[in-house]
Amino acid sequence: MPKVSQEHLDARRRQIIDAARLCFARNGFHRTSMPDVFAASGLSAGAVYRYFKSKDELIAACCTDALQAVAATLPDPDALRGDTASAVPMGAMLDRLVDSVVALDGEEGIGRVAIQVWGEAIRDPDLAAHVRTEYDAVLDRLVAVCAHYRDTGALAPTVDPKVVALAVMALLQGFTVQRTVLGHTSQADFKAGMHALLNTAG
Amino acid sequence: MPKVSQEHLDARRRQIIDAARLCFARNGFHRTSMPDVFAASGLSAGAVYRYFKSKDELIAACCTDALQAVAATLPDPDALRGDTASAVPMGAMLDRLVDSVVALDGEEGIGRVAIQVWGEAIRDPDLAAHVRTEYDAVLDRLVAVCAHYRDTGALAPTVDPKVVALAVMALLQGFTVQRTVLGHTSQADFKAGMHALLNTAG
Repeated sequence: MPKVSQEHLDARRRQIIDAARLCFARNGFHRTSMPDVFAASGLSAGAVYRYFKSKDELIAACCTDALQAVAATLPDPDALRGDTASAVPMGAMLDRLVDSVVALDGEEGIGRVAIQVWGEAIRDPDLAAHVRTEYDAVLDRLVAVCAHYRDTGALAPTVDPKVVALAVMALLQGFTVQRTVLGHTSQADFKAGMHALLNTAG
Repeated sequence: MPKVSQEHLDARRRQIIDAARLCFARNGFHRTSMPDVFAASGLSAGAVYRYFKSKDELIAACCTDALQAVAATLPDPDALRGDTASAVPMGAMLDRLVDSVVALDGEEGIGRVAIQVWGEAIRDPDLAAHVRTEYDAVLDRLVAVCAHYRDTGALAPTVDPKVVALAVMALLQGFTVQRTVLGHTSQADFKAGMHALLNTAG
């Protein structure tokens, strides 16, 4: 077998994950077979199985991929720490997160896959553990960002950054439900709603 | 056939919905059969089919039932309107909604059923239309409550009550995901997070 570069391996892996996400978004996990993924990726069974042994591994990989994409849209906590002057206001940070949810959820249907992952995770303890690990990575980054907001005075000094991160995460999860399932919430309306909440006396 | 009272009919209907919800929460829609529902309800096939013709009708009924239960925990907009003095503060209203999500999601697993309904609705246009109608009923009530908050000064006079209602709904939907799928968010943490958000300059 000829030796292949890491770049080639990464590109193939990406090609398979993108094809699987498309299949899952369109037809759901239950109605997607491995041959469907072979066809969508344009690769042979052997080529796909070299990377993913089963549909379950593909579901887990799509979940990791989607949450890493969300995490990548968060401000870098280290960069924030050194630079208080250019800190993005809390409301603008939330707007940016909403934009990232919308940008990720085009044709590829990350939102549709996320909602199916939640449903599967309820009854599959292995997937549930995987989902929790991936969400915790996003949450840790969000906690670091909220700690920065507390340290720079945007949040009260007594506020636990973790609980704020959980509420922000809930807003994004709920927005995903509203866009994907209910189809009734515009990006502008949701941003306006978050800003109104932020400026409300509790 | 002997004539039966409306009370009896309602009680039987409730008995079937409760049994179906339990089955769906435990095993999911795909792995629940009508005979499973007969067994769980303790009723004959004929008795169940008298009320629900198919599993799809049972799924829709569980969805209606759950969202009506959530709506019932919201303050009554008419009562609020006449009585500005006793208005519940916004933060306390949100706490009450969180309590209602937790109270509803005991053994019966309304959260587990909700998340499955979202997943099904993505690929079933009839269920999607039904879910939207039921969510809109909750949303309408929430919009009326938020309009009251605007009229009594808790929200700024320029705020559109609908966008606030969407953000509040998202918080509850996200909290459901976190409790049911991720299992990592306590009631107290979530309330603290919402209150911290409310008191943040946007």
